[in-house]
Amino acid sequence: MKTKHPLLGELSGELLGTAILVLFGCGVVAQVVTGGFPDSVTSGDHNSIAFGWGLGVTMAVFVAGRISGAHLNPAVTVALTVFRGFERRKVLPYIGAQMIGAFVGALIVRVVYADQIAAVDAGHTKATQGIFSTSPGEGVSVMTAFADQIVGTALLVMVIFALTSAINNPPLANTAPLIIGLLVVAIGMAWGTNAGYAINPARDFGPRLASWITGYQEAMFSANGPELYVWVPIVAPIIGGLIGGALFVYGIERFLPPATQPQEIGVEQPAALQDR
Amino acid sequence: MKTKHPLLGELSGELLGTAILVLFGCGVVAQVVTGGFPDSVTSGDHNSIAFGWGLGVTMAVFVAGRISGAHLNPAVTVALTVFRGFERRKVLPYIGAQMIGAFVGALIVRVVYADQIAAVDAGHTKATQGIFSTSPGEGVSVMTAFADQIVGTALLVMVIFALTSAINNPPLANTAPLIIGLLVVAIGMAWGTNAGYAINPARDFGPRLASWITGYQEAMFSANGPELYVWVPIVAPIIGGLIGGALFVYGIERFLPPATQPQEIGVEQPAALQDR
Amino acid sequence: MKTKHPLLGELSGELLGTAILVLFGCGVVAQVVTGGFPDSVTSGDHNSIAFGWGLGVTMAVFVAGRISGAHLNPAVTVALTVFRGFERRKVLPYIGAQMIGAFVGALIVRVVYADQIAAVDAGHTKATQGIFSTSPGEGVSVMTAFADQIVGTALLVMVIFALTSAINNPPLANTAPLIIGLLVVAIGMAWGTNAGYAINPARDFGPRLASWITGYQEAMFSANGPELYVWVPIVAPIIGGLIGGALFVYGIERFLPPATQPQEIGVEQPAALQDR
Amino acid sequence: MKTKHPLLGELSGELLGTAILVLFGCGVVAQVVTGGFPDSVTSGDHNSIAFGWGLGVTMAVFVAGRISGAHLNPAVTVALTVFRGFERRKVLPYIGAQMIGAFVGALIVRVVYADQIAAVDAGHTKATQGIFSTSPGEGVSVMTAFADQIVGTALLVMVIFALTSAINNPPLANTAPLIIGLLVVAIGMAWGTNAGYAINPARDFGPRLASWITGYQEAMFSANGPELYVWVPIVAPIIGGLIGGALFVYGIERFLPPATQPQEIGVEQPAALQDR
Repeated sequence: MKTKHPLLGELSGELLGTAILVLFGCGVVAQVVTGGFPDSVTSGDHNSIAFGWGLGVTMAVFVAGRISGAHLNPAVTVALTVFRGFERRKVLPYIGAQMIGAFVGALIVRVVYADQIAAVDAGHTKATQGIFSTSPGEGVSVMTAFADQIVGTALLVMVIFALTSAINNPPLANTAPLIIGLLVVAIGMAWGTNAGYAINPARDFGPRLASWITGYQEAMFSANGPELYVWVPIVAPIIGGLIGGALFVYGIERFLPPATQPQEIGVEQPAALQDR
Repeated sequence: MKTKHPLLGELSGELLGTAILVLFGCGVVAQVVTGGFPDSVTSGDHNSIAFGWGLGVTMAVFVAGRISGAHLNPAVTVALTVFRGFERRKVLPYIGAQMIGAFVGALIVRVVYADQIAAVDAGHTKATQGIFSTSPGEGVSVMTAFADQIVGTALLVMVIFALTSAINNPPLANTAPLIIGLLVVAIGMAWGTNAGYAINPARDFGPRLASWITGYQEAMFSANGPELYVWVPIVAPIIGGLIGGALFVYGIERFLPPATQPQEIGVEQPAALQDR
Repeated sequence: MKTKHPLLGELSGELLGTAILVLFGCGVVAQVVTGGFPDSVTSGDHNSIAFGWGLGVTMAVFVAGRISGAHLNPAVTVALTVFRGFERRKVLPYIGAQMIGAFVGALIVRVVYADQIAAVDAGHTKATQGIFSTSPGEGVSVMTAFADQIVGTALLVMVIFALTSAINNPPLANTAPLIIGLLVVAIGMAWGTNAGYAINPARDFGPRLASWITGYQEAMFSANGPELYVWVPIVAPIIGGLIGGALFVYGIERFLPPATQPQEIGVEQPAALQDR
Repeated sequence: MKTKHPLLGELSGELLGTAILVLFGCGVVAQVVTGGFPDSVTSGDHNSIAFGWGLGVTMAVFVAGRISGAHLNPAVTVALTVFRGFERRKVLPYIGAQMIGAFVGALIVRVVYADQIAAVDAGHTKATQGIFSTSPGEGVSVMTAFADQIVGTALLVMVIFALTSAINNPPLANTAPLIIGLLVVAIGMAWGTNAGYAINPARDFGPRLASWITGYQEAMFSANGPELYVWVPIVAPIIGGLIGGALFVYGIERFLPPATQPQEIGVEQPAALQDR
C-alpha cells in the first residue's frame, strides 16, 4: 500500500522529526538553565546541552529517516537541492514542515517548563530566552556570530555529505543517525559559545516565534544590544551549508573511484602477511 | 530444546532485565546523592545519572532482548499490546515480573548503599528518597509533573517504535539496544528535572515500595508537600506511551512503503555521479 | 602460519590487553587526582574516570579479542572455566599474564606521572594511592565493600555472558567490545564509590604491587584504618563473577530456543501491516 | 572515472580531514578556555575537550577514510610506512598536506574566536596559547612530557593497528572511525595533562605556527620556562608511533591465524548447549 499522497508522509516525517529534535534540544537547555534537582545534584551543564541536542538529532533521524530523508533543517534541504538533486518543488513544503515542527516542539517545552521558568525568570528576559533561540555570546559581535554560523553549518553539512555518500564508505548497519548526532554533539562543544550553534534556521526561528508569542518580547533581538538578530541564524546557516556541501563534492567526492562492495575503512592486509 | 514453559522464561527475562535496569539506575543516583570519593574527585553529577540510567537500559535490553522482547516497562507493554498485537494474557504477568525485578534491584541498592545513606541522611528523609523513586522538582506542581511524564514517555515509546519497526529502516547489527539506552540518556538530560523522569511505572513503584518498607515513611508522597504522589508516575507514563505509539503508527508508519532489502538511511547516489 | 606455541600468543594478548586497560584506567585516575591543566580548565572528574576505564576496556578487547578472547580479568577467566568450558590448564597462565600486564601498565603510570604525584602528595600516602588500587569509601565498612564488589562483578559477568552468547542475539558487526566498555562505564557510575569498582583481581593487585614497591607503604591496607584490604578485591570479584554467570545461564540461557539467522532484537512486523 | 591524479585526491583528503580535526579540536579548547555562555551554563570542561577532539577525529576519518586512508597524523603515516608498506614517495606529501590542513583549521579558529580571546587574554600570552598548541603541565619537566608523548602515541598507534588489521577481527559495518575517535577521547582523559596530548606532530605544529604569526610570540616555548618546546610534540609522537606499531605487529599479529569469515569477538557456543 503505497500512500496516494507521498508528499504528505514526507512532510509528516519532517514535522515530527523536527519537533522531536526541538523537544530534546530546547528541553535540555530549559532543564539546565532553570536548574531544578535538589541537594547535591544539579540539573546538567554545557556537556548535557551538547549531548541533549546531539542525541535528539539521532532520535529524530531514526524516526524520519526512511520516510522523508530526515533533513530536519532548511540548510540541509537547500544543500541537498543544489548538490544532490533534491526536487525543487519540495523545498518550500519541507522548510514549512520543519518550521512548524520546531514551533510546536518549542511550545510544548514552553508550557511544561513554565513553572520552572517563572521561578527563575518571571519577567521572561534574555536570561531564559536562550532556552528557545540563539544569541551571540557576551562580547561577541554580530559579524563574528555570522562567521561562526557559517563555520558550524559548513562542518555539519560537509560531514553529513561524507556520511551519506554511497561512494565514500559511509557508516553501515544504519548507524549513520548515531554518527550524525555525535557530529552535532561535537559542534556544540567546539562551536557553541560564539553564537549558540543554531546551524539550522528552523531550529532557531520556530522556537523564537514560540517564545515571542508567549511573553518574550525581546526574542527577535540580540542579547548584547538592540540589534535585530533573527536573520543571522537563518541566513548564515544556508550559506555555510552550501560551502560545506561544495567542500565535500569538489574536495573529496570528485576524486573518489566508483563504490565497490561494502568494505571497511582502512582495513589493510598487513604488509608482513601479504606474501603468504 | 524449546522449554515447555516459554512464559516462565519470558518472565525470568523481564524480572532480571528490570532488576539490572534498577541496579544501574538507582545505583547511580545513590552514588551521586551520597557522594563518596575523597579529595578532588566527586562521585558524579547529573550527567552521570543520565548515562547511568541510559546505559543500564542498554545492558538490560541486551540481557532480556531475545527471551522476552525486553519491555522492562509497563508503559511499553501496554503500548505494544494496543498497537503491536502483544498477547493480552501476558500483560499482567509481564507487569508483575517488571515490578518484582525493580523491587529486588532496589532492595539490593538499599542494602549495599546503607552505610553511605546513613552517613548523609540518617533519618531517611526526602533528601535520599530520590535514590529510589521520583518526585516533582522544587516549585513544580503535580499537574506539571503529570504533563512532563506524558511528554517524556511519549518520546520514549515513539522512538522505540521507530527503532523496532521492520519497515522504518531500524538500526541493524543489533545496535538497537545501544540507541534505546542513548534515548533514555537524552530524556534524562532534557526531561529530567520537572518530575525525575520515571517514564516507567515499574521503575518507580518497585523501588518506592522497597524504600517504604526499609525506613522511608514518606515514600508515597510528593517532596513538595503532603500530596499523595505515587499514582502520577504510574498513570501518566501509560497515557504518554499510548500517545507516543499512536504518533508513530499514524504519523509515520502508515505512510511507509513496504520494507525492501536492508538499506542505509539517507545514502544517496550523488547527483554528480548519477549519469556516469 | 599457525604459530607453534598458540598459548604464547594468548598470553601475549592477555598481558598486552591488561596493560592497555591499566594504562588508560590508572592513567585517568592519575590525571584527575593530580589535577594539572592550568586556568579555567580542570583535568577531569568522576565522569572522566568512568569513561576512561570503560573506553580502556573497549580498546583492550579490540586488541586482544581474537588472539586470547580478551578475558583481561581473573574473575572472567574463572567464570568462563566453570560455565563455558574454558580449559583448566590455561587458567593459571592466563591469570599470571593478566597480573603481569596490570603490574607493568601501572609501573608506567607511576613513572610518567611521578612529577605530578610528587607535587600533590610527596609522602605517597592514601591521598594518591587510589590512582593504583582500590579502598572502601569514607565510612564504608569492609563488609559493605565486599558485598559491593560481588554486586559489581556479578553485573559485569552476567552482561558479558549475554553479550557473547551465540543464542542470545549478541551485538553484531563486532561492536561487542564497545558495549562491554560502556558496561564498565555504567558500573563505574553506579557501583563506583563504595569500594572503587575493582571488579577485577588483576586490575587491583597488579597496580597495588606496583605502588607498594615504589613508595606506597600502606598499599595493602584499607584507607579507613589498619585493616588488611588487599584480599577483598581479589576474593569478592571471583564470587561475584560466578554468581553473575550462573544468573545468566540459569535465568536466561536455558530458556532460549536455538539460534536462528542473525536477527534484530525486537524488530517486529507492525500489527497494522501484517495482513497486507 | 578514476581521476588522473590520484595523489591529488589523497592530499586533498588529508588536508581537509586534518583541517576538520583541528576545527573541532582547537575549537573546543577555545570555547572552554574563553568561557562564554551566560548565567548558570558554562562553556564546557575537560570532558568536553576530550570528547571534542575525539569526535573531531571520528568525523575527519569518515570524511577522508576512503580517499586517503585518513592518516591525519605524521606519526601514523610513518608507522604505516614502516610496518604496513605505505609508499615512501607519498610520505612527505602526506605530512605536508596534514601540516597545511592543521594550519588552516587553526587560523579559522583564531579568527572566529578572536573576540573572545581578546576579551580574556588581550596580550595573547600562554593563558590562551593552549588553544592552539601543547605545553607541559605545571611542574612537569620536558623529559616527563617527552615520555608522556611516547606513551600516548604508542597507545594510539597500537590500537589503530588492532582496529584496522584484517586478521584481528576489526570492528565491522564501518564503525572503526567511531572507535578511533573514542580512543582519542580516552587518551585525552588518561594521558592529557602531562603534556596536553598532541600525539600528532601536524596537530601541534600547524596550529603553533598559526598562533605564532597572529600575535603569540611565545608560541615555540614551554609554558613553564624559556625552554624551546616545539620539537617535543614532533619527535616524541614519531617514536611512540613506531613503538606502538611494533607492539601490535610483534606482540599480537604474528601469533594470529589467517582471517576467517567475518566473525564476532568472543561469541562462544555455550558449553551447556554444545552437545545438543
